[in-house]
Amino acid sequence: MPEQKKTIKDFSQLIALLKEKNVCKRTAVAWPEDAHTQEAVTRAAQEGFISPILVCSEETAEGYAGRHGFQSVIARTPEEAAQKAVGLVREKQADVLMKGFLNTDVLLRAILDKEVGILPKDTVLTHITVAKLPEYHKLLFFTDAAVIPAPTDKQRREQVRYVVDFCHAFQIDCPRVSLIHCSEKVDERHFPYTASYATLREEGENGAFGSCLIDGPLDLKTSCSPEAMSVKRIDSPIGGDADALIFPDIEAGNLFYKAVTLFCRAETAAVLQGTMAPVVLPSRGDTVESKLYSLALASLISR
Amino acid sequence: MPEQKKTIKDFSQLIALLKEKNVCKRTAVAWPEDAHTQEAVTRAAQEGFISPILVCSEETAEGYAGRHGFQSVIARTPEEAAQKAVGLVREKQADVLMKGFLNTDVLLRAILDKEVGILPKDTVLTHITVAKLPEYHKLLFFTDAAVIPAPTDKQRREQVRYVVDFCHAFQIDCPRVSLIHCSEKVDERHFPYTASYATLREEGENGAFGSCLIDGPLDLKTSCSPEAMSVKRIDSPIGGDADALIFPDIEAGNLFYKAVTLFCRAETAAVLQGTMAPVVLPSRGDTVESKLYSLALASLISR
Repeated sequence: MPEQKKTIKDFSQLIALLKEKNVCKRTAVAWPEDAHTQEAVTRAAQEGFISPILVCSEETAEGYAGRHGFQSVIARTPEEAAQKAVGLVREKQADVLMKGFLNTDVLLRAILDKEVGILPKDTVLTHITVAKLPEYHKLLFFTDAAVIPAPTDKQRREQVRYVVDFCHAFQIDCPRVSLIHCSEKVDERHFPYTASYATLREEGENGAFGSCLIDGPLDLKTSCSPEAMSVKRIDSPIGGDADALIFPDIEAGNLFYKAVTLFCRAETAAVLQGTMAPVVLPSRGDTVESKLYSLALASLISR
Repeated sequence: MPEQKKTIKDFSQLIALLKEKNVCKRTAVAWPEDAHTQEAVTRAAQEGFISPILVCSEETAEGYAGRHGFQSVIARTPEEAAQKAVGLVREKQADVLMKGFLNTDVLLRAILDKEVGILPKDTVLTHITVAKLPEYHKLLFFTDAAVIPAPTDKQRREQVRYVVDFCHAFQIDCPRVSLIHCSEKVDERHFPYTASYATLREEGENGAFGSCLIDGPLDLKTSCSPEAMSVKRIDSPIGGDADALIFPDIEAGNLFYKAVTLFCRAETAAVLQGTMAPVVLPSRGDTVESKLYSLALASLISR
């Protein structure tokens, strides 16, 4: 009899799963010159799911890295650190990439470099968040809060594919994916996205994304509240119990991310997907926990 | 010495202000055939700030209206109730209009009718929400969660004007209005809205909207958190202390509305603005409190 896999419902269960599976990913950290990054890296290494390779200043190599026995590669500038950390992924010496104390633009430029970057040609780069909201009974996956301004059909399809893969990695056998819109009507004239939603739903029903249930356009309440769904008298396989939300554009995705972190005490983890290895790309002001959970998420999905 | 006016910071203060000012608005209620609408109307009438005119079935007129001594006008169908209630506003026999147990489309059709409706020619119709979030220290005004899919420059300007007027009615002398976007950069190519934001900011500085501070594009965190603003090293007159948020489009506005009501235990009030009288247009599934607060909001801003 096959072992029943247990669905991961919060971040402590995620870390427990990584331990149970003996996951330990080589993680290149670009320019870990601030206390927050160092604290998150230290905790992830203590939990055992990453083995850090710090691409850092000489001072940090001798001090922080030396104290903890972490591997280090010296860089003189943030730019050089970004290039060297990306190089480690490209040469398959690292399984995960993390941004430290440097501007996002600097790291993205190294990632997207056509000659020595790590985004394969014709591959869609997108941003996926996993959030635990105190008012929701399980994790909520969503995309895209940070990268794609207005997804094309191809980008949208890859967003769904990535999100479904993430849910499977969290041992959700048949994730419920809701295509978010302000109402449940397909209205090609005012809202061109809703037409592509109808196509995606069909593709999903035909098995294009593996085991999952896809529906939309649906609004957030109908997607995440069985009561709201029943009040609206909508019949949807999502059942007011969505695992994942696909947002129409970056305005909506970014706003949701910021609303739940600012006003709902949400815990979040996030990575870039599409690159040769998952990239942890925290914002200034993200908590240490958020960085730690993002490292855990990246470690789980890294191949 | 003029009396110092006290800023309204939550809905109980709003209701207290209405009492203090002896506000009592004649409120036409279209088809109040459900318990939720009736309960909200009864409570608002008991608080004293509305005098209801129920456009209802014969049964409701004899039962509910009779029991409470409310004025009533008989209608045979929801459509007739919508037309008659709109007619009361048009004939200046009602100061506020409220939707009862009928489809939004039915009431909107009567409101927007070119011959006998109540939207003056060339007037912008928009939806304004006031929310009290447990995690924010004051009321938050925002637009547009429900009506305008993608605001034109003219519509955007009126949104700002209405919101500033609302804030003034809540005795906020110099409201801070944030033009919301996913980042603080003006980027006309990817995000055409951000260019119109820059224009609005200039108009605001030149006094086009009366006493207020307008800035944007700004993201939600920078707008509502002094800490986030300082981490990002942004210098904005909003100071992480926004009173009002202007959202780029209906996708963003609607999502924010639903996120805060579903996941942040927000209390909300909302009205349509632009019509000859404010319109309370609750959604199915809105709480009795939300309907009551919306009536209070409409009563305050009705002229």
